[in-house]
Amino acid sequence: MAKNARNAISPSRAENYPEWYQQVIKAADLAENAPVRGCMVIKPWGFGIWELMQRALDDMIKATGHVNACFPLLIPLSFLEKEATHVEGFAKECAVVTHHRLEGDGQGGLKPAGELEEPYVIRPTSETIIGHSYSKWVQSYRDLPILINQWANVMRWEMRTRIFLRTSEFFWQEGHTVHATAEEAKKETLKMLDVYEDFAENWLAVPVLKGLKTPDERFPGAEDTYSIEALMQDGKALQAGTSHFLGQNFAKASEITFLDQDGVSQVAWTTSWGVSTRLMGALIMTHSDDDGLVLPPRIAPHHIVILPIYKNDEDRKLVLDFCNSLNKELQALRFNHAPLRVSIDDRDIRGGEKSWQHIKKGVPIRLEVGPRDVAKDSVFMGRRDRAPKDKVSLSVKELLAGVSSILETMQEQLLSRAKDFRKNNTKVINTKEEFEAFFNSSEGAVQGGFALCHWNEAAIDHPLLTKHKVSPRCIPFDSEAFPPEQGVCLFTGKESRKRIVFAKSY
Amino acid sequence: MAKNARNAISPSRAENYPEWYQQVIKAADLAENAPVRGCMVIKPWGFGIWELMQRALDDMIKATGHVNACFPLLIPLSFLEKEATHVEGFAKECAVVTHHRLEGDGQGGLKPAGELEEPYVIRPTSETIIGHSYSKWVQSYRDLPILINQWANVMRWEMRTRIFLRTSEFFWQEGHTVHATAEEAKKETLKMLDVYEDFAENWLAVPVLKGLKTPDERFPGAEDTYSIEALMQDGKALQAGTSHFLGQNFAKASEITFLDQDGVSQVAWTTSWGVSTRLMGALIMTHSDDDGLVLPPRIAPHHIVILPIYKNDEDRKLVLDFCNSLNKELQALRFNHAPLRVSIDDRDIRGGEKSWQHIKKGVPIRLEVGPRDVAKDSVFMGRRDRAPKDKVSLSVKELLAGVSSILETMQEQLLSRAKDFRKNNTKVINTKEEFEAFFNSSEGAVQGGFALCHWNEAAIDHPLLTKHKVSPRCIPFDSEAFPPEQGVCLFTGKESRKRIVFAKSY
Repeated sequence: MAKNARNAISPSRAENYPEWYQQVIKAADLAENAPVRGCMVIKPWGFGIWELMQRALDDMIKATGHVNACFPLLIPLSFLEKEATHVEGFAKECAVVTHHRLEGDGQGGLKPAGELEEPYVIRPTSETIIGHSYSKWVQSYRDLPILINQWANVMRWEMRTRIFLRTSEFFWQEGHTVHATAEEAKKETLKMLDVYEDFAENWLAVPVLKGLKTPDERFPGAEDTYSIEALMQDGKALQAGTSHFLGQNFAKASEITFLDQDGVSQVAWTTSWGVSTRLMGALIMTHSDDDGLVLPPRIAPHHIVILPIYKNDEDRKLVLDFCNSLNKELQALRFNHAPLRVSIDDRDIRGGEKSWQHIKKGVPIRLEVGPRDVAKDSVFMGRRDRAPKDKVSLSVKELLAGVSSILETMQEQLLSRAKDFRKNNTKVINTKEEFEAFFNSSEGAVQGGFALCHWNEAAIDHPLLTKHKVSPRCIPFDSEAFPPEQGVCLFTGKESRKRIVFAKSY
Repeated sequence: MAKNARNAISPSRAENYPEWYQQVIKAADLAENAPVRGCMVIKPWGFGIWELMQRALDDMIKATGHVNACFPLLIPLSFLEKEATHVEGFAKECAVVTHHRLEGDGQGGLKPAGELEEPYVIRPTSETIIGHSYSKWVQSYRDLPILINQWANVMRWEMRTRIFLRTSEFFWQEGHTVHATAEEAKKETLKMLDVYEDFAENWLAVPVLKGLKTPDERFPGAEDTYSIEALMQDGKALQAGTSHFLGQNFAKASEITFLDQDGVSQVAWTTSWGVSTRLMGALIMTHSDDDGLVLPPRIAPHHIVILPIYKNDEDRKLVLDFCNSLNKELQALRFNHAPLRVSIDDRDIRGGEKSWQHIKKGVPIRLEVGPRDVAKDSVFMGRRDRAPKDKVSLSVKELLAGVSSILETMQEQLLSRAKDFRKNNTKVINTKEEFEAFFNSSEGAVQGGFALCHWNEAAIDHPLLTKHKVSPRCIPFDSEAFPPEQGVCLFTGKESRKRIVFAKSY
């Protein structure tokens, strides 16, 4: 067995993609299962990535005129009951708080005590509790629009969970806005979808397709749900963010009304939109390889790790002094409008093992420095987008002059590589036979991809879809790539006005 | 009634301090009570302040070598049971999750269903759940120290709540560290207390006293609890942050052990430390006046608000163009290592009312701009540290040259004013009579302050303390201000080795 293979992630993507995913997370030390059903612990390296995502997206949300606020974790049952479709959508997965203290159970243990008059659920989403506040805040057209976002933890008691992709507790931002007109609310819904697209592509290097969800995939209580859909390396789609036009459904339920300019009472129009820690899953499954995590430099907690190599105390001082001064010079440089993030890993473990740890964590650039490098005023550079052994010697001068543009290139190439993958795994499909062949993948192969098919709403739950566990991902907006095009639904033979995207999905 | 008085906060501080506090929060639009028992909604202006606090403190926590991570919201009952003192301290105020779904109650409503085998509590603090992870992560001395912080919501079912000061759900950071030796853990405990002091004084302009808590005020399960104590304008103390040396108590309960350099298994030493949204209360009660909130510039969401004034469309364009260009020039300036935060308030409401809204929100600098100011290339400046009507005309050139240093001065003066207040309300007290006189305040007057008395542990719960609702706040560290000094306990007549601080408290 080659040395490389010994260090690589086992199993490989081709051998077992779902297990590879878990092993990448473990090898990169991103997160692990918690001792609470379906919940996760996000470890420092994983949380560092999430923090960078939060910071970048938060800036974009604020730049589009929104402000942050904070609403309660708990929702009274009576609030949830107000919107019938909504409660139906979430009733089966609510964590319910029924007591407010503990007392001895007589056997040395504890039991719940102090039963509450009205139970609370831990928010699975906050439309109803935020709507209550909004109904008090909105009196006149002058109070509108309300453009508020919150970063929060939410809880949905999922039966089958997988780290980052589907967990009982997860972390997200949820925007909730109120508008005087339907038109303005619809514009907001689409604006935030654009923000999500911008963020996914330009920060995470994850190309996404924007579109309208089919009625069966709508958020419970929404009029229209839009999403961004990404294609993972196994050919399955991942819904990476959603934006909902809620019409007047929640405004009616929460009584959000206002006096218009003529003094007439009107029901407001609302939206909500969110992305979550699920994006961590999208990130991992878009870029990572059989050596472990690959990070787009913009959201890498460290852009560069410096690895000092020495065998005795004399060399130690020489090498560490050099590394410290290199560190300072690098941190004075900028990438993506901020200082370079550099760390020195001086832990006392074997050099090869240490280097592999950083490969598996997806650090974009590794700089090995030994006594001979110091003598030459140079470093030995490894890049995460090259093979682990493909390292080059570089003078410090060359390094300082070129490192920011190397990171820029890595960021761009990750996006273009992912776009190529999507292009190569998107297929126009016109017959049921082609459809079956596309999704009938052999083990280890890409499981289909994006299938562009003519479609009619009557095809929802068609046996062919159920059989292959394929679903409509979204109805893309009209564009050059997705023109309006009269056709016949592949599944029902009914009329279709354009092709939509089908895929297996997470 | 004077115009000023009409706009001021009612009641005044002297009339009714607790009610004044609530009215300042309302007038500044910081937060309000939620429809969930004892919980609050933090509104955008209040949350903007909290975000600035978080950012600044997070940077300081990271600069001292810590990283962030994220642990579950829910704690299994069996975890809580592991540390006896700890569970005793929190059992009476735990929100308990007992079910994981809802079903129809047969009367058109919903009821909890799907009872859990083991109930969970919503974390009141995370020692036990984080300890579980640490027990797996720590194997060898090489894994130590662990220096992790998390920003989180926590829940304590409090009977009497007050916004920011004591709420059922609140927001905080909780640091949890593991060390190989008691000495190192103690050093960490004190290091973080220093960080809190630095943050409170240099960002919030809230002077604090550092010291050790007396045994009756220790965190449940801690060996030693240290705190920073601030003095509010009503003479009551507010515990603004705590740092706990947990000894081996939680390490034993969670089985955090490691092999030392000789291969011998050792029990680790842990610490925890936290500050919360309570700091918002400290901020309000330290600086605000009878006109409303006063904000130290470093944590003001807007340093400056520009208020355009015009009567017709022609003036409107003239004035707004001027304001927009002024805004750009101001945002190019820096204060406290970041660009100035400036907003233009062009809402169509009466100028006087608008100006007062920003006074009540504590915006440090207001710039009124009318057509005559435009003609003179000047602004009319009001400062939050001057009387509302004490405004000066300033050329734009003077403004741009001086504004950053005005903000710097305001920041410094808030701190020195608060230090003066504390000095004037701290008294060395040697007899019971003096003690009673100090705390026997008449209505509206300052309720005592910091009393420095000789003390012995046997004085805990002494009738004189109970009678005046006074408690030991902390045992200050030895210093010039608090020298070791042999004496006799004021309450018990037993021996005392130094004076400690007594006060009424929040």
